[in-house]
Amino acid sequence: VTDIAFTGATLLDGTGAAAVPDAAVVVADGRISWVGRAVDRPRDPGLRVVDAAGKYLLPGLLDANVHLVMHVDPDVLLRYEPGLYDALVLEAAQVALRSGVTTVFDTWGPLAALRRVRDAIDAGRATGSRIRFAGNIIGNGGPWSPDFFPALGEGLSSSVVSAVNREWEHGVGADLTWMSAADVRHVVRDYLATSGIDFVKYAASAHAHSRLIAFSPDAQRAIVEEAHAAGLTAQACAQAPEALRMAIDAGVDLLQHGDLTGPNPMPDETLDLIVERRLPCVAFLGTRRRTDALLERGLHWGRTAVGLEQVILAKLTNDRNLIKAGAVLLLGLDMGVYGPSADTSPVFGPIRADDPEPTQLGRSHLSWLRGAVEHGMDPADALLATTSNIARAYGVDDQLGTVEAGKRADLLVLDANPLDDPDNYARIAYVVKDGAIVDRDRLPERPVLTGDRDA
Amino acid sequence: VTDIAFTGATLLDGTGAAAVPDAAVVVADGRISWVGRAVDRPRDPGLRVVDAAGKYLLPGLLDANVHLVMHVDPDVLLRYEPGLYDALVLEAAQVALRSGVTTVFDTWGPLAALRRVRDAIDAGRATGSRIRFAGNIIGNGGPWSPDFFPALGEGLSSSVVSAVNREWEHGVGADLTWMSAADVRHVVRDYLATSGIDFVKYAASAHAHSRLIAFSPDAQRAIVEEAHAAGLTAQACAQAPEALRMAIDAGVDLLQHGDLTGPNPMPDETLDLIVERRLPCVAFLGTRRRTDALLERGLHWGRTAVGLEQVILAKLTNDRNLIKAGAVLLLGLDMGVYGPSADTSPVFGPIRADDPEPTQLGRSHLSWLRGAVEHGMDPADALLATTSNIARAYGVDDQLGTVEAGKRADLLVLDANPLDDPDNYARIAYVVKDGAIVDRDRLPERPVLTGDRDA
Amino acid sequence: VTDIAFTGATLLDGTGAAAVPDAAVVVADGRISWVGRAVDRPRDPGLRVVDAAGKYLLPGLLDANVHLVMHVDPDVLLRYEPGLYDALVLEAAQVALRSGVTTVFDTWGPLAALRRVRDAIDAGRATGSRIRFAGNIIGNGGPWSPDFFPALGEGLSSSVVSAVNREWEHGVGADLTWMSAADVRHVVRDYLATSGIDFVKYAASAHAHSRLIAFSPDAQRAIVEEAHAAGLTAQACAQAPEALRMAIDAGVDLLQHGDLTGPNPMPDETLDLIVERRLPCVAFLGTRRRTDALLERGLHWGRTAVGLEQVILAKLTNDRNLIKAGAVLLLGLDMGVYGPSADTSPVFGPIRADDPEPTQLGRSHLSWLRGAVEHGMDPADALLATTSNIARAYGVDDQLGTVEAGKRADLLVLDANPLDDPDNYARIAYVVKDGAIVDRDRLPERPVLTGDRDA
Amino acid sequence: VTDIAFTGATLLDGTGAAAVPDAAVVVADGRISWVGRAVDRPRDPGLRVVDAAGKYLLPGLLDANVHLVMHVDPDVLLRYEPGLYDALVLEAAQVALRSGVTTVFDTWGPLAALRRVRDAIDAGRATGSRIRFAGNIIGNGGPWSPDFFPALGEGLSSSVVSAVNREWEHGVGADLTWMSAADVRHVVRDYLATSGIDFVKYAASAHAHSRLIAFSPDAQRAIVEEAHAAGLTAQACAQAPEALRMAIDAGVDLLQHGDLTGPNPMPDETLDLIVERRLPCVAFLGTRRRTDALLERGLHWGRTAVGLEQVILAKLTNDRNLIKAGAVLLLGLDMGVYGPSADTSPVFGPIRADDPEPTQLGRSHLSWLRGAVEHGMDPADALLATTSNIARAYGVDDQLGTVEAGKRADLLVLDANPLDDPDNYARIAYVVKDGAIVDRDRLPERPVLTGDRDA
Repeated sequence: VTDIAFTGATLLDGTGAAAVPDAAVVVADGRISWVGRAVDRPRDPGLRVVDAAGKYLLPGLLDANVHLVMHVDPDVLLRYEPGLYDALVLEAAQVALRSGVTTVFDTWGPLAALRRVRDAIDAGRATGSRIRFAGNIIGNGGPWSPDFFPALGEGLSSSVVSAVNREWEHGVGADLTWMSAADVRHVVRDYLATSGIDFVKYAASAHAHSRLIAFSPDAQRAIVEEAHAAGLTAQACAQAPEALRMAIDAGVDLLQHGDLTGPNPMPDETLDLIVERRLPCVAFLGTRRRTDALLERGLHWGRTAVGLEQVILAKLTNDRNLIKAGAVLLLGLDMGVYGPSADTSPVFGPIRADDPEPTQLGRSHLSWLRGAVEHGMDPADALLATTSNIARAYGVDDQLGTVEAGKRADLLVLDANPLDDPDNYARIAYVVKDGAIVDRDRLPERPVLTGDRDA
Repeated sequence: VTDIAFTGATLLDGTGAAAVPDAAVVVADGRISWVGRAVDRPRDPGLRVVDAAGKYLLPGLLDANVHLVMHVDPDVLLRYEPGLYDALVLEAAQVALRSGVTTVFDTWGPLAALRRVRDAIDAGRATGSRIRFAGNIIGNGGPWSPDFFPALGEGLSSSVVSAVNREWEHGVGADLTWMSAADVRHVVRDYLATSGIDFVKYAASAHAHSRLIAFSPDAQRAIVEEAHAAGLTAQACAQAPEALRMAIDAGVDLLQHGDLTGPNPMPDETLDLIVERRLPCVAFLGTRRRTDALLERGLHWGRTAVGLEQVILAKLTNDRNLIKAGAVLLLGLDMGVYGPSADTSPVFGPIRADDPEPTQLGRSHLSWLRGAVEHGMDPADALLATTSNIARAYGVDDQLGTVEAGKRADLLVLDANPLDDPDNYARIAYVVKDGAIVDRDRLPERPVLTGDRDA
Repeated sequence: VTDIAFTGATLLDGTGAAAVPDAAVVVADGRISWVGRAVDRPRDPGLRVVDAAGKYLLPGLLDANVHLVMHVDPDVLLRYEPGLYDALVLEAAQVALRSGVTTVFDTWGPLAALRRVRDAIDAGRATGSRIRFAGNIIGNGGPWSPDFFPALGEGLSSSVVSAVNREWEHGVGADLTWMSAADVRHVVRDYLATSGIDFVKYAASAHAHSRLIAFSPDAQRAIVEEAHAAGLTAQACAQAPEALRMAIDAGVDLLQHGDLTGPNPMPDETLDLIVERRLPCVAFLGTRRRTDALLERGLHWGRTAVGLEQVILAKLTNDRNLIKAGAVLLLGLDMGVYGPSADTSPVFGPIRADDPEPTQLGRSHLSWLRGAVEHGMDPADALLATTSNIARAYGVDDQLGTVEAGKRADLLVLDANPLDDPDNYARIAYVVKDGAIVDRDRLPERPVLTGDRDA
Repeated sequence: VTDIAFTGATLLDGTGAAAVPDAAVVVADGRISWVGRAVDRPRDPGLRVVDAAGKYLLPGLLDANVHLVMHVDPDVLLRYEPGLYDALVLEAAQVALRSGVTTVFDTWGPLAALRRVRDAIDAGRATGSRIRFAGNIIGNGGPWSPDFFPALGEGLSSSVVSAVNREWEHGVGADLTWMSAADVRHVVRDYLATSGIDFVKYAASAHAHSRLIAFSPDAQRAIVEEAHAAGLTAQACAQAPEALRMAIDAGVDLLQHGDLTGPNPMPDETLDLIVERRLPCVAFLGTRRRTDALLERGLHWGRTAVGLEQVILAKLTNDRNLIKAGAVLLLGLDMGVYGPSADTSPVFGPIRADDPEPTQLGRSHLSWLRGAVEHGMDPADALLATTSNIARAYGVDDQLGTVEAGKRADLLVLDANPLDDPDNYARIAYVVKDGAIVDRDRLPERPVLTGDRDA
């Protein structure tokens, strides 16, 4: 790989520092070797100089909550032997990369395929967004289990349903919720020793029955302690006020969709705690247009009589309060790639119908960023929410999240200032990953799900 | 009411003391006025003397866990306007009384009807077993909610389903699980101030999804504290090891079916705690014959992939350990009255099919007592489990549970020694409640559910 | 009963003759004793004279297709022991009578209750619209069977479902479709000998699976012949082109909803046959407003992939063609009485939602009459469709359907001319049945279903 | 291909003639060129002589009712793009061939794949049993439609369900039942002109709702006439007495499972008609062992309240009567190939559970033959039922079904006499198709479904 210098762009370095006009960034050996004013930049003869005058240079984006295999309809998964979902994972990682998201944190997915594709991308054998993944949400079952989308498995042989679920569960599924805290600890320890995952996620709230709690305080502490002992960060999926509080008390490093608390907003005490501890919190922000559309639909939530409307209104209150209080928010929105059959799927069809911005990797981060600004977040803070905040929350800020010498050379060069208008995140001039300019037109190389839809 | 002396019987007084042969018990004004050897008894002229020679006299039995309205099929409940289930409650109370169970603790039922019939019986306006009741299990929905038997409501108008559920929920239903602990406290406080219930029961485990936890430790403590502040005992429904432990830590006075912990037995630490604290624990004991039949059926448990077989085996381990360790066990078995349509009910039909001893109030306490002895419990301890243990657990041992002067005159006179053979609990000579001999042949006066079945 | 003379009204006698201004009608002993110009009327001293100047006098209306027990939700039916639906039948008959419909033909309902209430009304022991009924639709199951609304029985004990279905089936249910034509003949013969029904209706089309045929030509002929042999008219429920043709070929006297032929209109040959033979045909006419609303809903039909829209469009074609060709059409619309819980019923809720004129006895005949005129029917023909056409089709035109001397004195006196505006059928001055003026304000006497709704 | 002479075997030539001991059969150019006594056989030098002394030589077997794609669980079908089921078809054709069934009549399946594989086998590009097929059963929907196994499609996107069903329906699905007879005629005519099918099958009975009739007499006649006009035989699927009679009256050439008439046996008149007209009739015969097992299961039939037991008992009566009366019976049993997931399939699992001889191509014809003899059929007649009777019924008796000079050289050479014991049909020495000895050990070449199961 040739060394490259990007010169003349306005630098938004992701540290929160003021924009630097007419800057230059030099990348060498996959890393950022020099950052400064364009006039000062090194003049090595071997350097390929890319004129980025008038453009905006920022860190490659990170996404704190994706699911690279999210369209789990049988017609998608059953094309493959259980677990051999590499093609799906790779397509999604390439869709992300094409859109400037150079690192994705997959918070629930099929372990073996994720591990193989992560390793292939890390080793340069495949092109795609850098993947870091959790495997299962400890305590939940797989995609066709009662914890997620049992309706998708209703017409299937139970042996097939079990085989697919196991690819997500890997021994840390729903069975753990029947165990004592001591037994949970042992099972998690064994899992961490062999699974090759990058971080730990567990169920504080039960997933489908989100008003309920999956683990006792002792069990939650055991999981967090084992994660830390293995050198990994730990995060929790909480969806109700008390579960959120229990997760915080258990010592998690990151709250997934911490703004989702069911029909009642989080208590002030919890909000204060999140702010004071600077506890990173993925918020499921969306545009007003989308929120208004969802409010009109009158669906139910968490398999109870609670209306979706109430839940959205409580979430809006949480979002407003978190932003106002200056909480450390992260971009994330359960983004994945959906093929055309999702529109008539028994599970995803009703969710996507009438949604003006149905979740889709490669697009939905733009909704999030637009929504953040609409919610009153400073555009500069929104940039942090998708760069250095995420890197820090996941403990990879020594490598990723800012444009600073020594970091991995993941860059996004835009034709217009994203702080002026979040839509400008889509006006991509260059995506650079590990020091190389990505050939975006080639991605995804094998459009398994996106082919028909985008054709 | 005339004063009566029962003379010549062998006295099993429910205190754990040795049997007293040739004893006499005098009742006056609804209370036990004298207990001693027959030769010493008072000889008041107005005294009606009942010769009980050769018989066995013991306290009227108590049942720590019944549901007087348990057959909640639509064809039963929809005969009545929502809540007007007095006829069902009364029939069940009379079925219990007929069988020698003079006090029942209803741990989940329709509040208003239970209150009316309790009061009518207490006031002597109606005949029946003495009722003490909890109303709802705080945190759960009503009978046709997702927490219990939603299948029963599938063909019904949702307005009808809601109206019936409300008769159980009374404002302390599933909504509370979405609340902060502080809000739970306030709602429970208001409920206790107005509901007229006799004791508090709450969901530690979620009911249908029994592997999950309904309330955080803070919320559980709030409920228990409010109960105590209102002068009531508190009990929890726990069905998994960690939920059981959380309930104990929250300070409950009684564990409902504390032997049910899902597919894994309770940890030794929890067992030790129950034994050391002498924490009363309803155990769902059954006969070997019944257990064997249930083990063969291969049903699933708690709406998960866990097999009923595993759950029963874990329960048997718990039962064995609890009995061996000398835990304070109480008789209870979700007993209720079922009419003939239960046999073809979508919910109760499969449960009752192939069950050699399907649950039925008036009969199932005999199964329990037989099962206790089969499990190795001393017959004398089994007697305590259905008398003084229950009275003490519910804080009514100043009035009930033993044959001692000053207590309410609830007596059971048997033709044969129940310590020799638990079946002898069914060989009833007299049932005495509040000092009067019950005319058992008249009960139930209006056989709403039991008529056809027993005809 | 006093004899009465209605004088001064404009007479629309139901024969198709021109309106007679300033007419008089005398009723005596429950019959019409004299009809003529007011100036010529008899002047008996005992005659009560009702001044009807400015009003319009017409025959009491008939409805060729009602279901007096139509709201068959469990919460309605389970208030009663199976079959004891007399209160429901009577309320419906009174709702009809209050609205001027003096005779109703119930084409599917619980036999025993219908028979009892029919007889009570005929004998003057009860007040209500005159009932003539078919009992079951031969070949179909009861209301909670797969042929009608199995979803309503999903939460119920199967014994209860069967018991309720039997009240409709009375031995001539779905089992007959498994039989040879010869066996069908024998079963029907026995049924007609004992059931006390007034006319025969059978399933040409299968009810729920309306694209399918219930009986072979031989079996259909057997049913019609047995009906005729018993002195009864026979009608068929047909819902598809070929089934309609088969019913005509079998010799039926009346086609129920002959305008419903699924997604394809009836062939010209069938239309010609109906017209040439002057075969009476109930048409399910509705207003444009209602049709437009139903077209927008996109529901499915007959449990197939066929859209409701296609079915409605085909029906509109049939209606237009039948009216243009001068077919003998009859008013009918599956009218029944629905209580409030129908709005949230799993079956009736979705049907009624967004329907601007949900079916309701006492109101829906007005929709029909308005719809008929909107479809291009002459208002005078619409009057025949709800009077003499029906009487003739059911073979009771010697007694009912016109204002002629000798007929039963069933009259409707309106404040305004119904031929000017169908809404005027609702501007009722008097309803007369069997010679007596109905006290409409008292009806229904016991509002079982209509109470809450109309309160 | 070399010419071959099989010498010394006992010849059972499928004509009904007596066995010929020590016979010889010469095959040349794919045809039988000579049949006679071994001593008389031609002695061409190029002839490969196979010594079959002690063996039994009979025609290759035919199966009058298979479904080469029968295991239609989503996990099987969704491995392929809709319609690309060639691998499934080919495996099944090879499983059949391996077991001595050299020609199969597929009476419901995915048209395009069947056509491709049929043509490939006919052209010698692929190895397998000769396929003749009907494509769809005219009037029925595809495998996941309400007519067959809608439960299998419940978790799938509706677009996927439709796409798969279309591969069976090919424009002659359930929509036809909504049409007039004239329209049915036109659609069928167009279908026959382009589909390349070998024979016509239509729904006399509706498939899932087997008590109901799918087509009027006029429509049935139209279908049969169009088939005959196209030079094809026509057969009907009938499952109830009247539907069976209607099919006969419509002029069909073959009755599929004519012994299945629901809970009531066929009337004597129908039986007589079948016998007199020598109307070929596939009978679903089975062994006593299997019948007894099915009788014990208490399942329901045809989505009605009718018990499977009644249906089986009626079928047994029909079978006994048909055999006794000498009806022309054909072997057939809906045989297909099932993979391991069928055992836990929501549809096939319950059907196969407790079935001692679950349907499987390559095995179930042995059950049929054993069952025929158990039912009292002469073993020689059973041989005709799987050879010449089928060839004649399908109009291919000029080519297939007997061992006669000029016929296609499809032969089965057995090690033991199948007339002594039907199990001997499994003691295969050689299978010859089109004059070549089949290398049975290689089949199936690609075991898609049978691999795991048989491993």
